[in-house]
Amino acid sequence: MKNQIERALAEISFGADGLVPAIAQQHDTGEILMMAWMNRDAVRVSLAEGRACYWSRSRGRLWRKGETSGQTQLLHELRLDCDGDAVLLLVEQQGVACHTGRRTCFFRAWRGGEWAIIAEPEIPPEALYPKGFDGT
Amino acid sequence: MKNQIERALAEISFGADGLVPAIAQQHDTGEILMMAWMNRDAVRVSLAEGRACYWSRSRGRLWRKGETSGQTQLLHELRLDCDGDAVLLLVEQQGVACHTGRRTCFFRAWRGGEWAIIAEPEIPPEALYPKGFDGT
Repeated sequence: MKNQIERALAEISFGADGLVPAIAQQHDTGEILMMAWMNRDAVRVSLAEGRACYWSRSRGRLWRKGETSGQTQLLHELRLDCDGDAVLLLVEQQGVACHTGRRTCFFRAWRGGEWAIIAEPEIPPEALYPKGFDGT
Repeated sequence: MKNQIERALAEISFGADGLVPAIAQQHDTGEILMMAWMNRDAVRVSLAEGRACYWSRSRGRLWRKGETSGQTQLLHELRLDCDGDAVLLLVEQQGVACHTGRRTCFFRAWRGGEWAIIAEPEIPPEALYPKGFDGT
């Protein structure tokens, strides 16, 4: 499996900062949940463990999605774009993706000249992060 | 409208390079079509003209999607994530999004230890770019 994963990595074009943008999409509904970043190790962990792992730019470390909040993303499939410089994760989101408690991070829509809030929290943020939100 | 657009821009956190990652999604099917980048002017043009405009990093200029190929993206809605550092464009894709002639740029899926091609070209690339593909 390790060699397989290295073959997967060989086709991904990481940027000068070692990162590639990663889109997380709910596999069955098509809902875009969030956008984050992955480095090589984040891809390795995601494929090896079958759950989304990102690189937290704010914390400067690997971030297994849900490690604090419990809102993990089971990885259904990893996809790669034509240039190899963006990846798409089809996931099964456990609970909510956003640290605000909303299902998706993309809850603001430009409508009628303002950013309208189009989704409400499904879980109180303080229930997700009893010790406070640390960026992961 | 100009003032409105400036208000939209005020909530978007552009990176140190002046860019924000942009995801294009077909508005009705949920299909992810591509990922590209926008600077302030690309957002201004997209909102003013109602069609997706990106910043081409390879060409170093604005890129009205479809300006060469005719495969434009009509903008249905612009969405913004919780941190304001990623945008989602809900679009009506005219024809295909990918320069290879495929509907989506994310046509490679990691399956069984290899990158499987999961979509075929719907339009021959040479029909999209009779003078050759220039990155836009």
